Amino acid sequence: RINPDRLWDSLMEMAKIGPGVAGGNNRQTLTDADAEGRALFQKWCEDAGMTMGVDTMGNMFATRAGEDPDALPVYMGSHLDTQPTGGKYDGVLGVLGALEAVRSMNDLGIKTKHPIVVTNWTNEEGTRFAPAMLASGVFAGIHTQDWAYDREDAEGKKFGDELKRVGWVGDEEVGARKMHAMFELHIEQGPILEAEGKDIGVVTHGQGLSWTQVTITGKDAHTGSTPMPMRKNAGLGMARVLELVDEIAWSHKPHAVGAAGHIDIYPNSRNVIPGKAVFTVDFRSPDLSVIEDMEKRLREGAKKICDEMGLEVEFEKTGGFDPVTFDPTCVSAVRSAAERLGYSHRDIISGAGHDACWINAVAPTAMVMCPCVDGLSHNEAEDISKDWAGAGADVLFHAVLEAAEI
Amino acid sequence: RINPDRLWDSLMEMAKIGPGVAGGNNRQTLTDADAEGRALFQKWCEDAGMTMGVDTMGNMFATRAGEDPDALPVYMGSHLDTQPTGGKYDGVLGVLGALEAVRSMNDLGIKTKHPIVVTNWTNEEGTRFAPAMLASGVFAGIHTQDWAYDREDAEGKKFGDELKRVGWVGDEEVGARKMHAMFELHIEQGPILEAEGKDIGVVTHGQGLSWTQVTITGKDAHTGSTPMPMRKNAGLGMARVLELVDEIAWSHKPHAVGAAGHIDIYPNSRNVIPGKAVFTVDFRSPDLSVIEDMEKRLREGAKKICDEMGLEVEFEKTGGFDPVTFDPTCVSAVRSAAERLGYSHRDIISGAGHDACWINAVAPTAMVMCPCVDGLSHNEAEDISKDWAGAGADVLFHAVLEAAEI
Ligand SMILES: NC(=O)NCCC(=O)O
Ligand SMILES: NC(=O)NCCC(=O)O
Repeated sequence: RINPDRLWDSLMEMAKIGPGVAGGNNRQTLTDADAEGRALFQKWCEDAGMTMGVDTMGNMFATRAGEDPDALPVYMGSHLDTQPTGGKYDGVLGVLGALEAVRSMNDLGIKTKHPIVVTNWTNEEGTRFAPAMLASGVFAGIHTQDWAYDREDAEGKKFGDELKRVGWVGDEEVGARKMHAMFELHIEQGPILEAEGKDIGVVTHGQGLSWTQVTITGKDAHTGSTPMPMRKNAGLGMARVLELVDEIAWSHKPHAVGAAGHIDIYPNSRNVIPGKAVFTVDFRSPDLSVIEDMEKRLREGAKKICDEMGLEVEFEKTGGFDPVTFDPTCVSAVRSAAERLGYSHRDIISGAGHDACWINAVAPTAMVMCPCVDGLSHNEAEDISKDWAGAGADVLFHAVLEAAEI
Repeated sequence: RINPDRLWDSLMEMAKIGPGVAGGNNRQTLTDADAEGRALFQKWCEDAGMTMGVDTMGNMFATRAGEDPDALPVYMGSHLDTQPTGGKYDGVLGVLGALEAVRSMNDLGIKTKHPIVVTNWTNEEGTRFAPAMLASGVFAGIHTQDWAYDREDAEGKKFGDELKRVGWVGDEEVGARKMHAMFELHIEQGPILEAEGKDIGVVTHGQGLSWTQVTITGKDAHTGSTPMPMRKNAGLGMARVLELVDEIAWSHKPHAVGAAGHIDIYPNSRNVIPGKAVFTVDFRSPDLSVIEDMEKRLREGAKKICDEMGLEVEFEKTGGFDPVTFDPTCVSAVRSAAERLGYSHRDIISGAGHDACWINAVAPTAMVMCPCVDGLSHNEAEDISKDWAGAGADVLFHAVLEAAEI
């Protein structure tokens, strides 16, 4: 068994870096706080006897040697970056749970045939630079590194420049590493495990995602002196499209979801009718055909709404991945670890995207989930118990030991 | 007659300060560009033999002496500040048209019994610091100066601190000046004069305005893993309220208008369901009871929408003024000046708010309007012709001469 108190202490220590405004964290990717969190993680890895490698996307890989020099490593980890008003566990539990597993191997003098690597993937959240899971996506060959370096934040700063600025451009070629297997521990971010009183979610699938950036163009004009029939109000057009997004998601109940989290209005002045609205629609479903249907209905419906209002509309797909089926052998390793350790568990579909979803394309991969209070995540009030964290890290520990062969 | 070429040259010279991104201006109040525009205006006034006074709200008053030392001055002017994506004429024409009238008096050796004062009112637009017409409102005793100093921009900077920073806190007590009369020349910002081929609008009334800042609070949560029935999407609540605003404005057709120009979403991250939406609803009508009805229906309707969605909603009135009836004698002076000069004209109601609307409460006031292309304003493409500008300044010139007694 891992040491839940030590794991919890490390979680609390990391949470001091990039504090939020309401008890959570704002440690967005490639900020100074992210750099500070990375340095602390590196120190902890080195204290645990591991050696750190960093690739040109800033992905961090801390290796614990195995007994067979030819055996491919078993990977485990997640991400340390957070949302602007994020929780203390989303991503962080998966990195520090993996570190705790290695610390426990050291305590117990466990040797594995395969080397073990603990990872921190860069920019999983996608909040500062879209899309999400950017660096694991480059690792898996989904995006090119040049394209990733060109992604811009809201201030127009580029990913590549910011990676350099914070000093985390490594010398390893991205994706050159080969993996025997990869495991990611993560909080559920949804309500199912807590509601059913289960300790562990054995993640069999991940639902797919589609991000469409919608740009509606009308005409800036005076809110007072422009008669109603002459208006081209891009904000009102957006309002109608947001209603449509909700309608489309509900029409695929129970499984589809849809919302717009990011909305910018131009020129954003109280007495100017909005001339432009830019917003990103996030649709998800475990079923690819449902995602395709939702995208199509969004484009057709928004076009119709805008045509009727004399507005222009453009669409750009800014992120997305297909639904994922995780590797049956790795999934079994997770399920039997939970079983062996006596934790209650159920199979589950991940509602969120994870680095594991991309890595699954290049290596046998699976995920372990633990509950979170009220299913709440991407909120500073995100919460878990020490017991839940400990159970999740225990299952990760045992699944990895099985894959790495003691 | 005034000199339309000289007026046009000054307009083009001022437009070089704080250029926009599309041919217009971004010379928002109390920015460095605003300070530069003020300095140029001061120089021009001094070159025309006037002496400058500045009050503690930064309002500028350039005086041309009259023949009777006891006669109260006749004021004319408008504002030099612009929207973030504003035009070259909104406000500026009223200030530089007044300056041109004084230059023409000098050319023609005209002496007046009453002194003449050309004014630039601080923060008319209200885009950086709400409400609009802030400094003329303090002058007229509508707001206290302390309250005005405390208004904050989007970055939390205070009006009073920014006024100090740009070096335009004067030593005159605000509102201490007494006026014989006040005249403001302004572009219509609406489509009526151009459509009817009229040179001049004789402004008899101004419509009233109400700004309500609406804050909807839901719960930040993950866009992927939060089931639809568990969501408290403040962005979707806002969308429904924006529809309601449109519905309410149309229900009072032909005269009422309504829209939200300013919208902020929190935390504004692509994969976070908005936990908070803050936006300002702008309602206008020439009829006070219509404004009151619209405000009431907004509050009741938004409350109902939010209750049904499990959202909280709060309202704050952040700006407003009642419909205005301008002074009949001053209005007559404008109408007869247009008549005398042979310009086609019609009576008109101002759709926008103007400094004249506040000053009307403390002095006999009227306005002159000239057409603008397609009725477009609060847009960088705002446009007028040199002839229209010249006709407007001519009528201002003659109306002021009548009031100031040659
Ligand atoms: N786990 C997580 O919140 N990842 C961010 C990517 C997503 O939006 O699903
Ligand atoms: N004239 C003008 O655009 N003033 C700004 C105040 C308003 O919104 O009416």
